[in-house]
Amino acid sequence: MEISLSGGRFQSCLREIRKRARDVDDEKKGIKIKKEDWEKLHVHIASYNNFPTAAGLASSAAGLACLVFTLGKLMNVNEDYGELSSIARQGSGSACRSIYGGFVKWCMGKNDDGSDSMAVQLVNESHWDDLVIIIAVVSSKQKETSSTSGMRDTVETSPLLQYRAQTVVPSRILKMEDAIKNRDFESFARLTCADSNQFHAVCLDTSPPIFYMNDTSHRIISLVEKWNHSEGTPQVAYTFDAGPNAVLIARNRKTATLLLQRLLYTFPPQENDLDRYTTNMCTSDKHDHGSYMLGDKSILSDAGLQSIADVEALPAPPEMKAPNQKFKGDVSYFICSRPGAGPKVLTDEGHALIDSATGLAKGV
Amino acid sequence: MEISLSGGRFQSCLREIRKRARDVDDEKKGIKIKKEDWEKLHVHIASYNNFPTAAGLASSAAGLACLVFTLGKLMNVNEDYGELSSIARQGSGSACRSIYGGFVKWCMGKNDDGSDSMAVQLVNESHWDDLVIIIAVVSSKQKETSSTSGMRDTVETSPLLQYRAQTVVPSRILKMEDAIKNRDFESFARLTCADSNQFHAVCLDTSPPIFYMNDTSHRIISLVEKWNHSEGTPQVAYTFDAGPNAVLIARNRKTATLLLQRLLYTFPPQENDLDRYTTNMCTSDKHDHGSYMLGDKSILSDAGLQSIADVEALPAPPEMKAPNQKFKGDVSYFICSRPGAGPKVLTDEGHALIDSATGLAKGV
Repeated sequence: MEISLSGGRFQSCLREIRKRARDVDDEKKGIKIKKEDWEKLHVHIASYNNFPTAAGLASSAAGLACLVFTLGKLMNVNEDYGELSSIARQGSGSACRSIYGGFVKWCMGKNDDGSDSMAVQLVNESHWDDLVIIIAVVSSKQKETSSTSGMRDTVETSPLLQYRAQTVVPSRILKMEDAIKNRDFESFARLTCADSNQFHAVCLDTSPPIFYMNDTSHRIISLVEKWNHSEGTPQVAYTFDAGPNAVLIARNRKTATLLLQRLLYTFPPQENDLDRYTTNMCTSDKHDHGSYMLGDKSILSDAGLQSIADVEALPAPPEMKAPNQKFKGDVSYFICSRPGAGPKVLTDEGHALIDSATGLAKGV
Repeated sequence: MEISLSGGRFQSCLREIRKRARDVDDEKKGIKIKKEDWEKLHVHIASYNNFPTAAGLASSAAGLACLVFTLGKLMNVNEDYGELSSIARQGSGSACRSIYGGFVKWCMGKNDDGSDSMAVQLVNESHWDDLVIIIAVVSSKQKETSSTSGMRDTVETSPLLQYRAQTVVPSRILKMEDAIKNRDFESFARLTCADSNQFHAVCLDTSPPIFYMNDTSHRIISLVEKWNHSEGTPQVAYTFDAGPNAVLIARNRKTATLLLQRLLYTFPPQENDLDRYTTNMCTSDKHDHGSYMLGDKSILSDAGLQSIADVEALPAPPEMKAPNQKFKGDVSYFICSRPGAGPKVLTDEGHALIDSATGLAKGV
């Protein structure tokens, strides 16, 4: 699919990067480009995102950050990550965070023009490498008619937002930084869940109200809350962005497998998804199409769930009061992942999406 | 069904009423009871509530207020409504409001023991008699596992509640009193909807979060918001109490019929409810069992919906973008009502639930 880059958000990024372009002199490849030549050159951009798009899971943030980072590398831009972060922010607000891996903080900045609104990395991805992330992509059959209202409506109409922004968030951010630095999962989980809920509370306090979460989201929260409560200490944190999909962060791999058992017990694949499960669940497919588990599928073996029969044989979690409550098909698929690194340049030609001979996207 | 009155909330009410009991001297009926005799007498209480119970629609408030009011009348209690309101409050917080008809305000009071926390009537039911209320009782098949958390959790854990209680609500109440006094429907509707949403926002901001509304509630809100927006001025206000059921207040009878058409278009009765519709919908059944419309059924004729065929023939409302979205069976039934009077003594023996000869509930 070819998309236009004429939109304001792309143009801002391109302009800022071009402004900073420098001479490129690659003797090995025999490439010599003068700073002033960049204005005359065309660039072919091919992009692949293995993450669900337009699902409120920051896929456009990932794409924009990747674009800015890659153009910066290509044009030999000599800026630190902070400046790249600030440029990415002009493409998509939250893209400023995706320039880094690990744990990142988005600083509001003080300038009216937003030029110092950028992200900084708190710690890299190796600092807290026990964490496992399971994302439940909630079935679109349940999706509400999409809301044209957004954060701007909330800023303009929610009486609670200002209090949240001025009073609640600043102190939470400090606590969250401490929790991350100390790998204090209990504090991390409590803050994460409370802040996710409060974000959705101010969405609801908007006029007209914005509902990103649906009944499935509520059920996932209840499942996690009940389990955490029965364990006496949080095993899993949840957070929901601008959509119904749950991002679940388990304190370690062992906890993630227990979580997955609970999730698959409650949200088994739909009848016509069984093929999807049995065929693709445990095999590795390069582009991961049509599987009920994307990303790190080895979590399924850890959880003892090699086949659909294993899923059907799962016992009800002991903390559940109504063990017959199952919601088949309410989750589209799961993604298993971990806190990862930021953008990086791949040098293996085989990974390239552009054919180095024609300069065109491969397969076009 | 016989229920025990040994619970603390009933006992508080009984004690307070007994304390205030006075001599009864009814020459016509030949009844003479001395004040001190009340302690020795037994009372048979028979109660009938035509409102859905335990659905988060204040049915216990209605019952408690009725009990306090009736015992007060029986025992010749010489207190004003304010004191009865305060006694009813001890049985069920919101019962203090149900002592009155029309529009009522619950004043927090200043005493630590809550003795001056009571309701006052702002205007009676004839002040604003254009309003029509349609309640959508949301199907229990969708009900979440009931939350054991309540308002106490919110008070203890929601950072937003205090701000709401101290800053937002006091000014809203003043505006609401003005709106009611001036029969200003636009202000009334905006305040009602905003405050309902904010109440549910602080429920969501609770740890663990409380979800009273579900996807059906969200859809009803979207339906009303879209319609109000397309009209440029509110036609209908919505408010949700501690449950998923929508209380919809239409500015007048004409608007209520247009609302009902929209509601029945989106939430038609389920296949196996069709009998319920055709048989009972338009006939008056004393206890209104098994009908898809309770209360004032004449609204159906106004809306041109005498049969299920009329419902099926309803055109999509012009403001709807996705006209094929129907959610059959997601609403259990509707109730059509109006702002009414408070408790009153019925003198017609035929209405009595107790047999005057045996002193026992009729039919026992």
